Amino acid sequence: MQLIDGKKIANELKQEIALEVQQMRAEGKKVPHLATILVGHDGGSETYVAGKLKDCAECGFKSTLIRYENDVTEAELLAQVHALNEDDDVDGFIVQLPLPAHISESNIIEAIDYRKDVDGFHPINVGRMAIGLPCYISATPNGILELFRRYNIETSGKKCVVLGRSNIVGKPMAILMMQKTYPGDATVTVCHSHSHNLVQECQAADIIISAIGQPHFITANMVKEGAVVIDVGTTRVPATDTKSGYKLLGDVKFDEVAPKCAYITPVPGGVGLMTRVALMKNTLLAGKKAIYKD
Amino acid sequence: MQLIDGKKIANELKQEIALEVQQMRAEGKKVPHLATILVGHDGGSETYVAGKLKDCAECGFKSTLIRYENDVTEAELLAQVHALNEDDDVDGFIVQLPLPAHISESNIIEAIDYRKDVDGFHPINVGRMAIGLPCYISATPNGILELFRRYNIETSGKKCVVLGRSNIVGKPMAILMMQKTYPGDATVTVCHSHSHNLVQECQAADIIISAIGQPHFITANMVKEGAVVIDVGTTRVPATDTKSGYKLLGDVKFDEVAPKCAYITPVPGGVGLMTRVALMKNTLLAGKKAIYKD
Repeated sequence: MQLIDGKKIANELKQEIALEVQQMRAEGKKVPHLATILVGHDGGSETYVAGKLKDCAECGFKSTLIRYENDVTEAELLAQVHALNEDDDVDGFIVQLPLPAHISESNIIEAIDYRKDVDGFHPINVGRMAIGLPCYISATPNGILELFRRYNIETSGKKCVVLGRSNIVGKPMAILMMQKTYPGDATVTVCHSHSHNLVQECQAADIIISAIGQPHFITANMVKEGAVVIDVGTTRVPATDTKSGYKLLGDVKFDEVAPKCAYITPVPGGVGLMTRVALMKNTLLAGKKAIYKD
Repeated sequence: MQLIDGKKIANELKQEIALEVQQMRAEGKKVPHLATILVGHDGGSETYVAGKLKDCAECGFKSTLIRYENDVTEAELLAQVHALNEDDDVDGFIVQLPLPAHISESNIIEAIDYRKDVDGFHPINVGRMAIGLPCYISATPNGILELFRRYNIETSGKKCVVLGRSNIVGKPMAILMMQKTYPGDATVTVCHSHSHNLVQECQAADIIISAIGQPHFITANMVKEGAVVIDVGTTRVPATDTKSGYKLLGDVKFDEVAPKCAYITPVPGGVGLMTRVALMKNTLLAGKKAIYKD
């Protein structure tokens, strides 16, 4: 069994990005600039955004945080999105989700200039990803592809079962894994809460990518010997033995599943850190205008 | 075994559309207008375009055919696309594929105003389809969804195997079948030429949708009792017993597979006619500005 070390890979990637940014700076080029819009003070969102700012600093990016209170109107937020679209100094920006219920998330996302949509949530980026054209790929699937690459995990022709069909993880992950490329070219099955045969599908899988957010859902009897298991789940549960008062649980019952696996990601220390660094990768691409020229 | 009668359903749909167009006309409204750009004189393309013009006439649409020779430049074609984008009388238009090798199909498709992209090939429509937002859904998957609806075929939780991963059939079909809606909500597996376990996947399938273009690839041993089989294949092979000198063969060995099926589509007379009428449905939506307001 080989543990996939998301922390190590994420650090390597950040160092590679930082080196490239250093060179950009040395050549007198502008460094990539990521702006983040954060509405309200949700604990999870605060943590995520703080992590993104820290990552930007480590990569040598310029970063800007724009805060609004929960009573911000959709019109105000749209005006801010348009201003960032027009701001030549900003290479990419994200609107931290979730937004308050009175604001349409899809209106906001669709207002973002797709050339600055480093989250990869805009329909143009989703469509280009599905078609196989260059685009910003959303962070979690992007981070998982990088893990396959760095560990040289074979995917072509393999049976890959994706658990979950969300717009930001399950669906894009499934589409990417079926593309005629590496990593990809797999036989992909998407299971979800209504699947009649989820257990059998998992039992036959060479690769399981679980993104359902149900702690310890995947047990040893659901995994075949030699499988690759990627755990996207990060459910917060109260804990007495941690400083923060909670701990993160994955979808996989790690202790009993790991011994059967060829490769497995831990939680924490697996996919989560790759998700964070994937946003940095997209921001670097935006700074270099590597995907969209103008 | 119930034969799915694509011809009957397609005719019903055309009559429903024609009735709605009659009412639009009676109310003094503009009737939907579909324009088609055809480059060269490829036999298949000529047949498809002739069919589309005939369908438009039967639905009561206005239709315009714009022809170019094979030596048209990409710039000329792009200028025509822009002119149609700007033409308020044209509700929707398509560029018949394939195009000559010196023209980039994706440049042409991306130049089409997505609000007039009734083929549903533009990245915005593909992305919106994946996300689950209102959009133009490409014709073949759209036609197949309509067959499920008209025959009340249960799809939720079922194992649906899609053979093929093209941008216009396999991938969108897979995405649509996994959405949290009817028809859809299935456990979807996409198989292709590199799949190691294609036969076993088919054997376990409640629904098989085959779009690989290999005549008689699906044999009785690959299909379980009571399965639903949708045959998208239409390979032209020479024939001495037809007027045209050729006949269309599906992916499915119909004679031996049909007796095992709960439902099956024939070739011809199945999916092909639904594909044609699905374009008419999108054109009606465009004429009514039902998907995009402005």
